[in-house]
Amino acid sequence: MSAVPAEPELDAQLDLQLDPAVAALLRHDPAGLVAAVVQQHDTGEVLMLAWMDDEALRRTLTTGRATYWSRSRGEYWVKGETSGNRQWVREVRVDCDGDALLVRVDQEGAACHTGERSCFFRSLPGVEGGAA
Amino acid sequence: MSAVPAEPELDAQLDLQLDPAVAALLRHDPAGLVAAVVQQHDTGEVLMLAWMDDEALRRTLTTGRATYWSRSRGEYWVKGETSGNRQWVREVRVDCDGDALLVRVDQEGAACHTGERSCFFRSLPGVEGGAA
Repeated sequence: MSAVPAEPELDAQLDLQLDPAVAALLRHDPAGLVAAVVQQHDTGEVLMLAWMDDEALRRTLTTGRATYWSRSRGEYWVKGETSGNRQWVREVRVDCDGDALLVRVDQEGAACHTGERSCFFRSLPGVEGGAA
Repeated sequence: MSAVPAEPELDAQLDLQLDPAVAALLRHDPAGLVAAVVQQHDTGEVLMLAWMDDEALRRTLTTGRATYWSRSRGEYWVKGETSGNRQWVREVRVDCDGDALLVRVDQEGAACHTGERSCFFRSLPGVEGGAA
């Protein structure tokens, strides 16, 4: 009812920022990214490693669907959007120095594009030494 | 007893190369590094994220003590050498595209320099959405 024009673009822009308190915890690499370790929340299995910028983290936190920045394709990708192997986010943690995230998810199907459950399916030979 | 001089430097150099079959699996970043996700082998807890070059991986595989490259200090560090919180390596896996390692260890004490067991001790607010 007012003659004052709305500023939808400005409003949208403000809504679309990562919480500044969260952003302040992050220490980005020169490309603006932090590493995201992805773990199945109940079994503890490490599924994959991906990358996030602030916007990918914002989308992940606000949608509950794991969203990454593809360094090779130069675009955001919602995990499972094409494969159907979606990741439902249960919790995101940040490490002590802010350059890595731990994304605890419920993974549908295979996390790896090869069809393996985890991207870490190859064991390297040669561990000698050993533990108590 | 021979008059032919030994070539210890050459021998040592050859001995000190990462297995070429392993090196060929890795896709390094421009700094020659791959990310190393470190996980407690029996509980599945993700402890930290660090970085390795080929030499750090070679030392890790041949000594059974987790050894990383410190990007901030520009040197190798054997985890726990000063703190006593050593990591005994049980297995190292490589991911599908070769730019990340999963180092499964037996962690003595705290993995984090803050004294926390894991570096990922802070949970971020704001996961909405959710899973089945």
